[in-house]
Amino acid sequence: MTEQTPLYLDLESRFGRIAALGEAAGMLHWDAATLMPDGGSEARSEQLSALNVTIHELLTDPGLGEGLERTEAEESGYLDLWQRANLREMKRRWLHANAVPSRLVEEETKAARRCEMIWREARAKSDFSLVKPAMQTLLSIVREVAAIKAEALGLSPYDALLDQFDPGNRANRIDPVFADLADFLPPFLNEVLDKQAAADAPLPLEGPFPTANQQALARKLMQAVGFDFAHGRLDVSLHPFCGGVPEDVRITTRYDEDNFLSAMMGVLHETGHALYERGLPSKWRRQPVGEARGMALHESQSLLMEMQACRSRSFVSFMRPLAMECLGGKGPAWNIDNLVKHYRRVERGFIRVDADEVTYPAHVILRYRLERALIGGDLSLDDLPGAWTDGMEELLGVRPPEDRVGVLQDIHWYDGAYGYFPTYTLGAMTAAQLFQTAVAEHPDIPEALGRGDFTLLLDWLRRKVHGRGSLLSADELLAEATGRPLDPDAFKFHLRQRYLEDV
Amino acid sequence: MTEQTPLYLDLESRFGRIAALGEAAGMLHWDAATLMPDGGSEARSEQLSALNVTIHELLTDPGLGEGLERTEAEESGYLDLWQRANLREMKRRWLHANAVPSRLVEEETKAARRCEMIWREARAKSDFSLVKPAMQTLLSIVREVAAIKAEALGLSPYDALLDQFDPGNRANRIDPVFADLADFLPPFLNEVLDKQAAADAPLPLEGPFPTANQQALARKLMQAVGFDFAHGRLDVSLHPFCGGVPEDVRITTRYDEDNFLSAMMGVLHETGHALYERGLPSKWRRQPVGEARGMALHESQSLLMEMQACRSRSFVSFMRPLAMECLGGKGPAWNIDNLVKHYRRVERGFIRVDADEVTYPAHVILRYRLERALIGGDLSLDDLPGAWTDGMEELLGVRPPEDRVGVLQDIHWYDGAYGYFPTYTLGAMTAAQLFQTAVAEHPDIPEALGRGDFTLLLDWLRRKVHGRGSLLSADELLAEATGRPLDPDAFKFHLRQRYLEDV
Repeated sequence: MTEQTPLYLDLESRFGRIAALGEAAGMLHWDAATLMPDGGSEARSEQLSALNVTIHELLTDPGLGEGLERTEAEESGYLDLWQRANLREMKRRWLHANAVPSRLVEEETKAARRCEMIWREARAKSDFSLVKPAMQTLLSIVREVAAIKAEALGLSPYDALLDQFDPGNRANRIDPVFADLADFLPPFLNEVLDKQAAADAPLPLEGPFPTANQQALARKLMQAVGFDFAHGRLDVSLHPFCGGVPEDVRITTRYDEDNFLSAMMGVLHETGHALYERGLPSKWRRQPVGEARGMALHESQSLLMEMQACRSRSFVSFMRPLAMECLGGKGPAWNIDNLVKHYRRVERGFIRVDADEVTYPAHVILRYRLERALIGGDLSLDDLPGAWTDGMEELLGVRPPEDRVGVLQDIHWYDGAYGYFPTYTLGAMTAAQLFQTAVAEHPDIPEALGRGDFTLLLDWLRRKVHGRGSLLSADELLAEATGRPLDPDAFKFHLRQRYLEDV
Repeated sequence: MTEQTPLYLDLESRFGRIAALGEAAGMLHWDAATLMPDGGSEARSEQLSALNVTIHELLTDPGLGEGLERTEAEESGYLDLWQRANLREMKRRWLHANAVPSRLVEEETKAARRCEMIWREARAKSDFSLVKPAMQTLLSIVREVAAIKAEALGLSPYDALLDQFDPGNRANRIDPVFADLADFLPPFLNEVLDKQAAADAPLPLEGPFPTANQQALARKLMQAVGFDFAHGRLDVSLHPFCGGVPEDVRITTRYDEDNFLSAMMGVLHETGHALYERGLPSKWRRQPVGEARGMALHESQSLLMEMQACRSRSFVSFMRPLAMECLGGKGPAWNIDNLVKHYRRVERGFIRVDADEVTYPAHVILRYRLERALIGGDLSLDDLPGAWTDGMEELLGVRPPEDRVGVLQDIHWYDGAYGYFPTYTLGAMTAAQLFQTAVAEHPDIPEALGRGDFTLLLDWLRRKVHGRGSLLSADELLAEATGRPLDPDAFKFHLRQRYLEDV
């Protein structure tokens, strides 16, 4: 093979270096979020900027563009399935990095930094009008970028943005499933809340629960799920995330001494991300085809662990004695039914990040509709706050009383990230569809989770999802794994089972 | 200035990027030594190798060589004192990176890796003959590298190696001071040991001293000395070191629960290194002239803190109540005299890293003599173990019974690091000379140390040493700071005062 594909091998070596430098940057980000002293932040920015400039130069080197073109023309006949997919993903990466003139990229970075700063102030003052001009500037640039990328990729502008976060996905696949969910959710939410109101509220779990004890419990749960501490760490950061590299995955959480329940599910959520990274095909390390397949599929792996596996009655029954031992819990509040109740509270709220499993998709669908209209030029910023409030009323039945808990709550748009929001709910639906198939193929899985045994489930995920890297689009992968493309039925079934049938 | 020196400014920007990438690598090294899980080591090597290759490419880019040449020819008349020194240091860096063909650099790296691996086995088996062939291969390459660099730099081969670690220093400056010390030490050691034998042994300090308590004490001592935790951290590693960057200096230590004394002085030693880094001229950040001036001067800053300032009776009297509080100490073993005695034990030992302040230079002088002979071709590896044993007898009055505690004890030569050893003792002598001058100019310093007040001393060091970066050679800097070049008198005076006069 080597003799027939010297051009392709040169591409592999270029992308290998790009990936290794990206890993270095990732580690420095992790360090900055977990343990860097405040005084180090300026120097850290310089280090990251040197890395990013270097990576950008490698990606925009004319030799790379030529190499891609010549490899496609001269060597694609000699490449196997994975290599061809790798070439396709290299090309995608190259297009995203080269399509937009660097002048515009710089303008976007600058406008995003400025808008984000003003947004922090506007949110504190709960006044959207303060940030509107800066947001307008940024939005115009984002629309310009979207138009250029759309041209280069042969997509619509919104799809070109979406492709950055969920490669291969398209709005015309999202529209029908989100429309279906948008019809389903409001009446379902009424039903769930009626049922909940008819039952007793959960008994409170009385803390404090010292951080060290919560951490000990979190480590036990992570190990049960399959996290290997020889290849990863658990640390603390303000915003929990999953960083590091497949051989050294670093997840973070935060602890509240009055409430251990949220940290535990947060940790299990990040563990889902970590297991995905850890299970990526090692043969394709540092190649585009060996990377995780986009944010939606990544989120499906965290939500599968958190929502499908670990909030199940079965897993809670496994967690319960460990939690009682680590945290000194006793009394009726620690009964399984009561613990499960805590994990299943549903509420009409204003804030996405505080939302429960049932209301979360409504928050996302609202944002998806609005950002599509903003990018399409069908909604002006003058009308955005009003459209937000009306959408909340339609989807969630509540009207946010002020911008702070409305249109100003999320950083994404003020940071230039359009096309990201749908990945959350695509992830939730994908998680349900994957989990149902895994259980259908291995009916022992739910009972095994009750023993803290994740072997069957993890093995299935490794084969069907993790080990596939970026060989397929997320939708193709899902179709291969479950026999059908993404549809909302599995998710709706799951919600009905959990919140109406109390399974 | 900008208009007149475009070439020079381009050099600054190139070296700025090189430095920032070097900082990224430094952070990844720190992480690997402190908290990386074992499973991450292979990926870490890939990240570091991508960074090192990139840095090497930037340093060997033909445009850089041309830029240096043209800047010297066309712009040096427009440069100020610091810029000219910066250009000189850029040139030195460039020469060290470009003089040796990359084929030979790779051979050296490979031979060093191999030799080091075999050395670990040879040391475990205490058999020098096992590592001799690999060492011979490595030594031959090092001599070739030394010859090439000597040619390029206009130096002798040994000086070319020394210049890597202590830029600007030369063997003909070291020879007379080491010869003086070599005459002084053996009879002085006899005197010290006689005096010590005539006195009572120190009372033991009974542990255990829990790690967390030692750490709390260490942090208090560091803060007194001037370490700012908004710009640095203290962590644990197998081999203590000082890493990070000036705005985020990260020192490490290790704790022995039976003995807190060694960790405290280890921490204060690394704090000396940290304060040097922290005090480097911020105006010249990421430029060669803004970096620390070589290993000898760096070691002088750690030894000044540890040996001159913190092992003084005055500082121990400050440390004592803090230590008693943190560690729950009480009884006569905690009297100042007894604590000081612990910190001043002298012994004829085989092992350099365990040596005390009096015998340490003898270990170094032995190695300096032998490595000069090896590089000069005046000593064969067949004769090395014998020469080692004879040298130990001459300088320290003991004959190591086996290679493990003799010629095999240190990694340096087996890793290719020739020219490094003298910097330890040059540092110790420099420390004594600087400290004596500081005290002569500010006679209040010793008393202030007794209150844990390092302001005067640190301010003096900032002005005379830290803030000077690499403007001067270490010897020039010392001459400016103390009025004379390095001589061994201050060090000898210090040893006499401390070990014979008990000051």
